[in-house]
Amino acid sequence: MSSLQGNLLIGQRNVTGNSKTIHAINPATGETLEPAYAGGSTAEVDQACQLAWEAFDVYRETSLEERAVFLETIASQIEAIGNDLVERAMTETGLPQARIEGERGRTCGQLRLFASVVRAGEWLDVRVDPAMPDREPMPRPDLRQRHIALGPVAVFGASNFPLAFSVAGGDTASALAAGCPVIVKAHSAHPGTSELVGRAIQAAVKQCNLPEGVFSLLFGSGREIGHALVVDPRIKAAGFTGSRSGGLALLNAAQNRPEPIPFYAEMSSINPVFPMAHALKARGKEMAEGFVASLNMGAGQFCTNPGLVIAVKSQALDDFVAAAGETLKQSAAQTMLTPGIHEAYEQGVSRLAKHDKVREVARGQTGDSPNQCQSGLFVTTAEDFLADHELQEEVFGATSQVIECQNEEEVIRIAEHLEGQLTVTLQMDDDDLAAAQALLPTLERKAGRILVNGWPTGVEVCHAMVHGGPYPATSDSRTTSVGSAAIFRFLRPVCYQNLPDGLRPEALKESNPLQLTRLYDGKRES
Amino acid sequence: MSSLQGNLLIGQRNVTGNSKTIHAINPATGETLEPAYAGGSTAEVDQACQLAWEAFDVYRETSLEERAVFLETIASQIEAIGNDLVERAMTETGLPQARIEGERGRTCGQLRLFASVVRAGEWLDVRVDPAMPDREPMPRPDLRQRHIALGPVAVFGASNFPLAFSVAGGDTASALAAGCPVIVKAHSAHPGTSELVGRAIQAAVKQCNLPEGVFSLLFGSGREIGHALVVDPRIKAAGFTGSRSGGLALLNAAQNRPEPIPFYAEMSSINPVFPMAHALKARGKEMAEGFVASLNMGAGQFCTNPGLVIAVKSQALDDFVAAAGETLKQSAAQTMLTPGIHEAYEQGVSRLAKHDKVREVARGQTGDSPNQCQSGLFVTTAEDFLADHELQEEVFGATSQVIECQNEEEVIRIAEHLEGQLTVTLQMDDDDLAAAQALLPTLERKAGRILVNGWPTGVEVCHAMVHGGPYPATSDSRTTSVGSAAIFRFLRPVCYQNLPDGLRPEALKESNPLQLTRLYDGKRES
Repeated sequence: MSSLQGNLLIGQRNVTGNSKTIHAINPATGETLEPAYAGGSTAEVDQACQLAWEAFDVYRETSLEERAVFLETIASQIEAIGNDLVERAMTETGLPQARIEGERGRTCGQLRLFASVVRAGEWLDVRVDPAMPDREPMPRPDLRQRHIALGPVAVFGASNFPLAFSVAGGDTASALAAGCPVIVKAHSAHPGTSELVGRAIQAAVKQCNLPEGVFSLLFGSGREIGHALVVDPRIKAAGFTGSRSGGLALLNAAQNRPEPIPFYAEMSSINPVFPMAHALKARGKEMAEGFVASLNMGAGQFCTNPGLVIAVKSQALDDFVAAAGETLKQSAAQTMLTPGIHEAYEQGVSRLAKHDKVREVARGQTGDSPNQCQSGLFVTTAEDFLADHELQEEVFGATSQVIECQNEEEVIRIAEHLEGQLTVTLQMDDDDLAAAQALLPTLERKAGRILVNGWPTGVEVCHAMVHGGPYPATSDSRTTSVGSAAIFRFLRPVCYQNLPDGLRPEALKESNPLQLTRLYDGKRES
Repeated sequence: MSSLQGNLLIGQRNVTGNSKTIHAINPATGETLEPAYAGGSTAEVDQACQLAWEAFDVYRETSLEERAVFLETIASQIEAIGNDLVERAMTETGLPQARIEGERGRTCGQLRLFASVVRAGEWLDVRVDPAMPDREPMPRPDLRQRHIALGPVAVFGASNFPLAFSVAGGDTASALAAGCPVIVKAHSAHPGTSELVGRAIQAAVKQCNLPEGVFSLLFGSGREIGHALVVDPRIKAAGFTGSRSGGLALLNAAQNRPEPIPFYAEMSSINPVFPMAHALKARGKEMAEGFVASLNMGAGQFCTNPGLVIAVKSQALDDFVAAAGETLKQSAAQTMLTPGIHEAYEQGVSRLAKHDKVREVARGQTGDSPNQCQSGLFVTTAEDFLADHELQEEVFGATSQVIECQNEEEVIRIAEHLEGQLTVTLQMDDDDLAAAQALLPTLERKAGRILVNGWPTGVEVCHAMVHGGPYPATSDSRTTSVGSAAIFRFLRPVCYQNLPDGLRPEALKESNPLQLTRLYDGKRES
């Protein structure tokens, strides 16, 4: 790991910070990891923003092919780091090798998916309404629309996906695909992983002969740098995955700038699961296995972790809870990402455990090394859940609550009472169809993704994915942070009226040299 | 006009308000118009929101055909009002008959355009990633995406388009098209026009057998009702066209709700025009005619009024200014929409006239009846414009400033200095192409629509239109308020994973019964 230098990457330059120093910690041992990362200051934010601004007009007009190759080059550069990346990420996060390798595959896969999306060009949403010079009473001018990039984007790396939601993660990939330069504020939990990936992007920028300001990487403890980034007038949008308090503070800053900007925060979700009566009866035990496996995945540190189970009280539900409790008791303790996350988890579980309306069903195995979490399963009634809003607060980690309802109407009442979610899950059999149909309209209003007979952990990177949802799951339910539709977060439409063909952007020329799908005079051309 | 009752419309009910009374004023005479409109209170806001909420799940799942027919029925009902509508609108606004009739045509045309958009179903943006059960290392589930309506929408009628941006205007049409119930807060300047159109929508709701909460119409002076609407938890988005202060106050309320919502405000734009050197020389006089005609259109009360002219100082520019001044001097005084708007215009012009760095070129004719405006043309230098931010403030009405620049670099500097705009206009000849190309990247970053050799007033309702732009032209540059793409403002994506076909919404069924365009496994099906 001698290649790590502990520097900020400002365009092609390596810059030594002079603010408070960050060290990664191996959560499995508590050991401090080298090198030190001296945090940046507002001076480095200013430099990175200036470079990004200077790069913007050039980068946003790179050809579809150039931009696609750039995204593919980033993927290749990340793969070229080889095992050093896997090892460093494992050491910094406590996550197992298979998970990190899988996440690397996902990260590179999503960069390549966006390359294909860029090439296809549907995101330009080209619309042409040709002139109608003889129309009465007024002629129609020639009107053409395309989408252009919003501007430089600030990306905040997440703690729980050190690759797929971090330096070259979903937000970076979609913003670069849209034509936006990116400045990443690395998560302080995995600075080494961030540096390695940041250098891969830096190398790809150089290899593709792009302006250096297309990418910069900042380190910094506390909120100073993040705030400075979000309020910088050259930053035109931001993506964030993290805590509700952190997300809301930055959202507030983004909205109160002299020029407000879109701020995409993914913040909080407890991902309710609705096991329905017939399914519970027919396969409650099997369901309990699947549920606990999903709950424990990655030590429960998924945004889509199933933190709530809502069902009608019955013998079958009791059996499900008992079976889940038995399985959960066998769950080995797992290392959490950081001491801070572990501490917050312990506090959250203890809040549930001490709650006089909440009954503890089971706890998992205790650990014998630092920062290990003990899974947890709790039960409460619908009435008590409705009465105490605190019971809706996310406990980030492998703990879930079962809400016992009197009947299906109360299940719907609980669903209506929920805040916005990333996912909701139905466990149902054919005979549950009517009940599921009754519940569906509520679920659609509450969540970005509705699953049947699966588990919410595991987010497919594809065209149809929505990783988003009503507030407070995210700050903007109109978009997704995973999947190819994420490119739309960083675009805005521009209309060109009566431009001579020589002045039109390539995408809008009458001869359609890029062979794009167009809505031409209201009809889809393909 | 005996049919006017002065009531609020809460679903199908006519409700008499009990707050402060509104009277329309005929701006051409100063005469107070009957009937009185007793304003609503928060109680009526609550009733309208409750009805809208109850209607939402039903209305958003109406078939494409049902919803299209509803929009067409609204158009027919508006036309059926006949001349009473034209007369009342003329009396309330001081606008001439041809303009009101044209605006009625546009209003009904855009309702019918949205009907065709709803039927085509592209707005659903259906994406299907079919299951891959044999994929290694993990099978892929079946994932399908469609867009659904955000929820009940609050619409604020604008003063300057009593039909096309008011009760059944663009925001209402696009929100209804998306599947959102609408509650309109009528603009107090034209309550009678609002009531007539509101009753037309109310009749269409009944005729189409839709839940009554699909539409309500509120009256109220001051900001109480508007604020109550925007903060009501059942309202999920809002559209606004009006002043910057009014827009920002409501935007702030929308963002600071427990659950923030999208708030689409169109607020302020001075719509710069860039006459380029060769065009100025070749046809400066003709250009001056076109410019003054656009400036005077509708007494300058267009969001896209050309309030700024930016060009390199030259003899040709002097000649243009002189010719424009001569034409403007002949401009007849025109009645403005309201006494308040007239007063604000007088203040704005007087601020310019008294400014020691601003030179008055010409004023139009004075009027002899109340609330008539005198057009105005002023000149200042780029240096002085850059030094005083106040000179960028919109003067709503037929007044424009010419900014004299030293050279083309200074033109670009001025362009960079501008706030976000709805439109920018280039007047250019073939020999101006290089200069136009140098300016274009800046213009794209500043405006929603770029015109060549036309004038910004006159907004075509079509597929390629963008009536929007960076802040403060609007609060959200990612959307448009005019044209078929406006439907996207009121939608959000939802992903359905592994739903049995029986539970899938019609739009997502495997057999594609609605024959929608889909992105199927990444490929466009048509």
